[in-house]
Amino acid sequence: MKMIEIEKKFMVLNDSFKAAAFTQNHIAQGYLSSVPERTVRVRIKGEKSYLTIKGLTNDTGMSRFEWEKEIPVNEAKKLLLLCEKGIIDKTRFEIKVGNHIFEVDEFHGENQGLIIAEIELDSETETFEKPNWLGAEVTNDKRYYNSYLSNHPYKNW
Amino acid sequence: MKMIEIEKKFMVLNDSFKAAAFTQNHIAQGYLSSVPERTVRVRIKGEKSYLTIKGLTNDTGMSRFEWEKEIPVNEAKKLLLLCEKGIIDKTRFEIKVGNHIFEVDEFHGENQGLIIAEIELDSETETFEKPNWLGAEVTNDKRYYNSYLSNHPYKNW
Repeated sequence: MKMIEIEKKFMVLNDSFKAAAFTQNHIAQGYLSSVPERTVRVRIKGEKSYLTIKGLTNDTGMSRFEWEKEIPVNEAKKLLLLCEKGIIDKTRFEIKVGNHIFEVDEFHGENQGLIIAEIELDSETETFEKPNWLGAEVTNDKRYYNSYLSNHPYKNW
Repeated sequence: MKMIEIEKKFMVLNDSFKAAAFTQNHIAQGYLSSVPERTVRVRIKGEKSYLTIKGLTNDTGMSRFEWEKEIPVNEAKKLLLLCEKGIIDKTRFEIKVGNHIFEVDEFHGENQGLIIAEIELDSETETFEKPNWLGAEVTNDKRYYNSYLSNHPYKNW
C-alpha cells in the first residue's frame, strides 16, 4: 500500500464539471478522530466502505501519510454511529482531464454550497492540465479539510 | 465479527499465574484516539498486528462496542509512529482456568509494577472459576483502561 498521499485542492467556479464526469457516488463519512495529527475516517462511498487514517501534511501542505483499508459496509455503518458529531454528506464526481482524474465533491447538508476539486499527483512537482471550471488553489487552507468541515460546517463560515 | 465485548478486570496478587500460562507474548500498543467514546488502538502482539476501535462501556462497565481487524506488521509499525505519546509496553500471559481463559498483562516501562487480569465472558451474568492469584475486581475503574494508562502512567499515580 502506498502510504504517502500527494494532492492539490481547488475551488470550483461552476458546475460544468458535472457533464464531464464519468462517475458519481454518494459519500457519507465521519471521524473517529478529527485531530489533524491523526485523523481516523469512516467512509461509505456508493457500495463500498473504507477506514482511513491520515497524518499531518508536510510544509507544502501537499503530502500526507495515508493508510486505508476497505471494510464491510455493515461494519462501516456501525462505526459511523460511533463517530464524532458532524457526518459529512457529499456527492463525488470523477472527471478525467488529460492524464489525471479530478475528484470533485459537492457538499450537502450543513456544508451545502461548497464544491471542492482534488487532484492526486505522483510527486509535488508533477504538472497537470487545468480545466476551465477550476478555481483558486486552496491546498494549504486547512478549513477545506473534511475533518475541519465536520466540526465547522460551511454554513457557519 | 462479534461487535460487543463483555469482560471483567482484576488486580493480580502475585506472579504464580506465570507458571500456569500456556502462552506469553510481547505487546506494544498506541492510541490514534484515547477519547473514551471512541478509542482507536494500534497493537503489535508477537508476530501479529491489529487495529481496534472501541466505544464507551455500558452502565455496568462490562460491555463495550469493539471492532478489530488484523493488519500487516509493517503497516502497524508506521501507524504506531502516528499515535499519541505513551506507547504501552507489556507482556501478556494467557492462562486457562476451568472453561475460561484469563489474559494477564504485566506492564513495563512507565507502567512497571502494574499487573492486570482480564476475562472475557459470553454474558454479563456468566459465572467463572477464580484462581488463587486473582485479586480485587477493577472492572469499573477507568484508571485501568490502557487508553488511560497511556496518558497517565502508573508510576505517576
